[in-house]
Amino acid sequence: MASFLKVLKDPVHDEILVDDPWIWRLVNTRGVQRLRRIKQLGTSYLTFHGAEHSRFTHSLGTYETMRRALNHLQLNYGWPSTERQRKLALAAALLHDVGHGPFSHTFESVYPIHHEQWTRKILLEEEEIRSVLTEVGSDFPQQLVDVFASGGDNTIVRQLISSQLDVDRMDYLLRDAMMTGVSYGRFELTRLLRSLALHEGQVVLKATGLHTAEQYIFARYFMYTQVYLHPVTVGSDVLVGRILQRARDILQAGGSLEMPFGLGAILAMEGNVGVADYLAIDESTLMYAFHLWTQAKDSVIRDLSRRFLNRQLFGAVVREELTSEEWGYLRTAARTRGFDPDYYIVGRTSEVAGYVYRGKGISVLDNSGQLAELGMVSRIVRWLEPNAEYRVYLPKELLEGGDPASRRIQSLLVR
Amino acid sequence: MASFLKVLKDPVHDEILVDDPWIWRLVNTRGVQRLRRIKQLGTSYLTFHGAEHSRFTHSLGTYETMRRALNHLQLNYGWPSTERQRKLALAAALLHDVGHGPFSHTFESVYPIHHEQWTRKILLEEEEIRSVLTEVGSDFPQQLVDVFASGGDNTIVRQLISSQLDVDRMDYLLRDAMMTGVSYGRFELTRLLRSLALHEGQVVLKATGLHTAEQYIFARYFMYTQVYLHPVTVGSDVLVGRILQRARDILQAGGSLEMPFGLGAILAMEGNVGVADYLAIDESTLMYAFHLWTQAKDSVIRDLSRRFLNRQLFGAVVREELTSEEWGYLRTAARTRGFDPDYYIVGRTSEVAGYVYRGKGISVLDNSGQLAELGMVSRIVRWLEPNAEYRVYLPKELLEGGDPASRRIQSLLVR
Amino acid sequence: MASFLKVLKDPVHDEILVDDPWIWRLVNTRGVQRLRRIKQLGTSYLTFHGAEHSRFTHSLGTYETMRRALNHLQLNYGWPSTERQRKLALAAALLHDVGHGPFSHTFESVYPIHHEQWTRKILLEEEEIRSVLTEVGSDFPQQLVDVFASGGDNTIVRQLISSQLDVDRMDYLLRDAMMTGVSYGRFELTRLLRSLALHEGQVVLKATGLHTAEQYIFARYFMYTQVYLHPVTVGSDVLVGRILQRARDILQAGGSLEMPFGLGAILAMEGNVGVADYLAIDESTLMYAFHLWTQAKDSVIRDLSRRFLNRQLFGAVVREELTSEEWGYLRTAARTRGFDPDYYIVGRTSEVAGYVYRGKGISVLDNSGQLAELGMVSRIVRWLEPNAEYRVYLPKELLEGGDPASRRIQSLLVR
Amino acid sequence: MASFLKVLKDPVHDEILVDDPWIWRLVNTRGVQRLRRIKQLGTSYLTFHGAEHSRFTHSLGTYETMRRALNHLQLNYGWPSTERQRKLALAAALLHDVGHGPFSHTFESVYPIHHEQWTRKILLEEEEIRSVLTEVGSDFPQQLVDVFASGGDNTIVRQLISSQLDVDRMDYLLRDAMMTGVSYGRFELTRLLRSLALHEGQVVLKATGLHTAEQYIFARYFMYTQVYLHPVTVGSDVLVGRILQRARDILQAGGSLEMPFGLGAILAMEGNVGVADYLAIDESTLMYAFHLWTQAKDSVIRDLSRRFLNRQLFGAVVREELTSEEWGYLRTAARTRGFDPDYYIVGRTSEVAGYVYRGKGISVLDNSGQLAELGMVSRIVRWLEPNAEYRVYLPKELLEGGDPASRRIQSLLVR
Repeated sequence: MASFLKVLKDPVHDEILVDDPWIWRLVNTRGVQRLRRIKQLGTSYLTFHGAEHSRFTHSLGTYETMRRALNHLQLNYGWPSTERQRKLALAAALLHDVGHGPFSHTFESVYPIHHEQWTRKILLEEEEIRSVLTEVGSDFPQQLVDVFASGGDNTIVRQLISSQLDVDRMDYLLRDAMMTGVSYGRFELTRLLRSLALHEGQVVLKATGLHTAEQYIFARYFMYTQVYLHPVTVGSDVLVGRILQRARDILQAGGSLEMPFGLGAILAMEGNVGVADYLAIDESTLMYAFHLWTQAKDSVIRDLSRRFLNRQLFGAVVREELTSEEWGYLRTAARTRGFDPDYYIVGRTSEVAGYVYRGKGISVLDNSGQLAELGMVSRIVRWLEPNAEYRVYLPKELLEGGDPASRRIQSLLVR
Repeated sequence: MASFLKVLKDPVHDEILVDDPWIWRLVNTRGVQRLRRIKQLGTSYLTFHGAEHSRFTHSLGTYETMRRALNHLQLNYGWPSTERQRKLALAAALLHDVGHGPFSHTFESVYPIHHEQWTRKILLEEEEIRSVLTEVGSDFPQQLVDVFASGGDNTIVRQLISSQLDVDRMDYLLRDAMMTGVSYGRFELTRLLRSLALHEGQVVLKATGLHTAEQYIFARYFMYTQVYLHPVTVGSDVLVGRILQRARDILQAGGSLEMPFGLGAILAMEGNVGVADYLAIDESTLMYAFHLWTQAKDSVIRDLSRRFLNRQLFGAVVREELTSEEWGYLRTAARTRGFDPDYYIVGRTSEVAGYVYRGKGISVLDNSGQLAELGMVSRIVRWLEPNAEYRVYLPKELLEGGDPASRRIQSLLVR
Repeated sequence: MASFLKVLKDPVHDEILVDDPWIWRLVNTRGVQRLRRIKQLGTSYLTFHGAEHSRFTHSLGTYETMRRALNHLQLNYGWPSTERQRKLALAAALLHDVGHGPFSHTFESVYPIHHEQWTRKILLEEEEIRSVLTEVGSDFPQQLVDVFASGGDNTIVRQLISSQLDVDRMDYLLRDAMMTGVSYGRFELTRLLRSLALHEGQVVLKATGLHTAEQYIFARYFMYTQVYLHPVTVGSDVLVGRILQRARDILQAGGSLEMPFGLGAILAMEGNVGVADYLAIDESTLMYAFHLWTQAKDSVIRDLSRRFLNRQLFGAVVREELTSEEWGYLRTAARTRGFDPDYYIVGRTSEVAGYVYRGKGISVLDNSGQLAELGMVSRIVRWLEPNAEYRVYLPKELLEGGDPASRRIQSLLVR
Repeated sequence: MASFLKVLKDPVHDEILVDDPWIWRLVNTRGVQRLRRIKQLGTSYLTFHGAEHSRFTHSLGTYETMRRALNHLQLNYGWPSTERQRKLALAAALLHDVGHGPFSHTFESVYPIHHEQWTRKILLEEEEIRSVLTEVGSDFPQQLVDVFASGGDNTIVRQLISSQLDVDRMDYLLRDAMMTGVSYGRFELTRLLRSLALHEGQVVLKATGLHTAEQYIFARYFMYTQVYLHPVTVGSDVLVGRILQRARDILQAGGSLEMPFGLGAILAMEGNVGVADYLAIDESTLMYAFHLWTQAKDSVIRDLSRRFLNRQLFGAVVREELTSEEWGYLRTAARTRGFDPDYYIVGRTSEVAGYVYRGKGISVLDNSGQLAELGMVSRIVRWLEPNAEYRVYLPKELLEGGDPASRRIQSLLVR
């Protein structure tokens, strides 16, 4: 009766239950709280205004989904059999995004350390998180790192947090759909969780859950086509990327640029960026930097920063990839019009997630105890191959302008 | 067929329709886009993690609710009868929050200019917004200011945007309820809008909508008791307020404190803060300031800033107001424990919104054309009086500590 | 792992879990299955077309709500402590409506045995249900009867199934709201269940759940005003009542009337109506009877039956109760117009449920272990007194007709 | 202001708006009201208990979806251009199911006249409906018949009510999903409607709506696999079919069987069944018949009727089709066990709806005005071919019994 219970109201799961004070201590570390200042969907809010939710809320939702998955597996398959296994799975869910930086995927495009490496460093080195983790055992942080690194022997935990049938996706599909206001990401979560089984040390799908799994896989397909790869969003990512690139180029050329505390060292890729320095940076830092740079001397970064803050985004044109000759032609025309093509014209391929086979597929367990790959059992999944689209992003002035240079660009790009 | 239409997906209204390019230009001004960087519910996200939505999404939702209200009134009562009236009402809805600063209500507690004064200045002075507004007419900005100032002769628009039955509340109740994950704020929006009537130049409620209006009024009551005045939220507001107060006190005492661009002038209340300066500040600026101040020399602001960023919030004790003798006792004990009471012990009264009479009530129109005040017609509304609660906020260490000073505090505060 | 589990998809609770094969056997008795053929809201579907759900779905939902309440109480208060207590509570929830007849409340107005008496007889006498119940113990059916009769010593079970804070209401408010398409009945179910506590052998409300309980109580108020007592619904009930009354009057006068199998004996109130006879009657029987009677020789029952089947319902006029003189005047006018007033003009008082005190109130338990009545703690509940409205129901022809008799009626009824 | 408006609350569409008194008169005909007594999903409520909604609610929802489609098309394409066209489309939506009988698809399996023929007869012959229809013009009923018969020149109306992109499906997917409590049938209705275009007298899909159309088509696929073809539902249909077949066989053999008014003539397929006779039969009649037959002398119909009313349904075995030799073996074993195989063992193929090509596909209109078939443009739709499953239905006693005959059956059927 006096047992520990924190109930957090949640728009997706109604309630998130934290019944282990150790988890509550993890939630309240500064490393996890920092995720409140990093948006789950990066610049998507510039396309779908509701997409303002943070990685923190998604991390809580992932934790809750894992907690429910564990309850099901524990009751029906006796796993997890130890408190440590349970804590490992819950911490993996709560912490899986802890290494993400501001505008994460874009940030990584100009900065060479991947967020997964940061996750590793944070778990092993960040004082407060490490301190809570080692309450379980001195080797617990390393064990958690192994889960994310797909090493170690915790196959089940790894599959639950990182596979084509993981609790990360389950939460983000439902959450991103709700926040953007679309139904594309909806699927039957409770039944999907109940369809999970353990079989020879692997997480598998019961055959009775076949169509529910299909619905979940197509939910992801629809979220990619309709939300995640929306041209306005990718164009905004490109814009943020060009701002950061320009900032670094200025720094490397020895130019001067006002810089928020801590950001300079990271953009300059100085070797000594530590965990504390990295964690001190979040999206408020970058947004503040963009504010600063709207007053910069450099006209490129000034213009790009204003575009981003005031939502004067790049337009997109879908087409086949450009030849180098076409690129040259395009760049010349842009330059004529006053736009430095290195920062104002960007080509990018966006790939709609499909279903992946070859050792990474979802195993389906039929009533007779036989396993088969989901793509073999479901025809509609089998045909859901990844699908790529090439787009060129550039200022709308070039796409709509009536001047000769813009006209040349339009006649090249738009058929 | 080639008419202008922007469809924005929205989690509350499904779709927000912008069918007037002039409105779209207003949406895309930097003054309105800035609202993306100010949270609708201030620090509530520290209590209800889902409450991460911005004043921008709420402004769009208010616009959409107004648009639907206008369609109803136009069809049934022939008002608005001019395009200018319609634009006035839509702009009032979209721009009603444009003067809000970061952590708005808290900011105002340390800064003497109210957000409504800023709204006025922005409408009249901010170049881009003013430019779009004056497309309608050179006196249009002033007309809009009059609507917000409850002056002028646009009673209907004023009532629709600012009364006990306004589209502002309609959107925020539904939106805040959805984002926090509670059902308390739900009510029958479509029917409530249809229950609006015009009568002798006033917005009134048709008697058939009586119970729907009751539901809407109680939705607000429940949101106040369960969400808006949650002790953890108010305690977080208090914390932000104390940080800003400390920053100003340091500045006024001639101390040094690193300061983000532009914030210093505002905190110092220098006379010459212009609209552009004000608009350059948003929550990313303040969050960045809190980051900076976690490294300040001053130990009070350093500690308070860390508490806020890492969610080590103040606790709250409900009680009757303290006597000055009790205050003295409490402050002495806090000081003994090392906490400067000016920044660490705060009393605050929170008032649950009730229903307000005396010339501000909702008029109900019965079938025979008679008007009556809602509180006269509905017994449950009549009894919904405002309800205040006094609470003392202070660090949890003092509420939970076992040292003598903390014990003295506890014995005084907690019965 | 091989444990028993039936998962039933449900629009209100997402899933209903039957994890006890004994409950599943009860669900599949013909007595419970019969509830599929009795609508939860009687004639409400003639007002809110979506209200087509049956007492069977509500019974399952009540069972599920009880199951969740028991899980909470068991975990936190160690009750139920025996399997038998648990089964008693679950069976009480599943079977609480088993005695309801077709158009239940209306049926009872012409038939002297109340549905609660039938529930008693069914539990004790109906072979199949009794057989499943006695698996628990030979005195189990009587124990269940005692729960419903408010006798016996199972206070907690009785409060959970029949009090102002019972699982019956919790399910029907949410379900009726969803099916009719309104939000009036929405409340925070999960939190309300978690707010239940046991204290000295009573079910009480924790003080922290105060506002959640307020929301639940006002949900009921709004459902009464907006749905349950809608004039079109009550008018439809009145119409069904008049049909049945006419049928009985014909039988008692020795007239002939085609009668579905079994209905005649019940309508004639012959003494020997047994449980099997009663259970053989459901709404398909009555609907078939109404079909038959559209061909009857008697013009009154022929007309009334056609009105009901083809939704040509009575209209309603709200007013104070009529004097006997006014009644006489009204009846004369109706007769002039060709309507037998005994069947075509009916006065009825509808009472909006309030909150009831005096030994039946909800006890609130504060942190210091003190109990207080909810109406003492919550001002808005205190003022929620029952509220009655008197209406006269009669054919719309009389309310809209231009003939002298109809005009006389209108001038009397409508001010 | 005094314009006609009926607002009907609806769980799927929130509100259904009837703004044309002529439509309201159609709604209130006895032919349409009768659809309240026919369930939308036949026996599905025996699998998904929430599926108790009627064809009446679906007809209203189809009307509402058509109304919204027409508003979109009218605004953007100027069609419908006449009030008559508009009335034709709305009436087609409201009346498309008016010919359905009780347990419609099953009823047709024993009765030779298809519901579409009845629709035709009702529109042309039923007095009340015909009278309302001819208010528009004396040839209006015939024009409506032509729409349903795919004749005439009203291609657009026909496509809107009966094609792979029709308002009938749009409503039933959303409604059936909500009532059964599953998310499988959810899709973006508003955007799908906005994606409709008119092009050379045809309803086509704008290319921007491609993925929304995919979502809608897969919603149907999931509803078929998870709801419509659920083995328990099909088994219940089979059971109803066998009851009706047995009744007819008894009649044809000159046996006696109590029969509700009017049903005998229909089951006996006497030539002179008129529209009025047909419309007098609904599901209350059949349910009453099943009640009656639980007391019949014939043991087969007595047993089958009891099974249906008390939900003792047939079980299903999935397998390839049986050879005639296997059939013989199976029938002998069943007979040994006391079950007449003609009524107790039934094979049935269930086909999951796919997407259909060859002149019936959905035309997609790209920005350059070119048309392409949806299956050519969308790879995932292209592969969504119909998919059939053969199942044998029989009493569960035979599938679970331990007697020699049941064992023989099991060893044949179950691998």
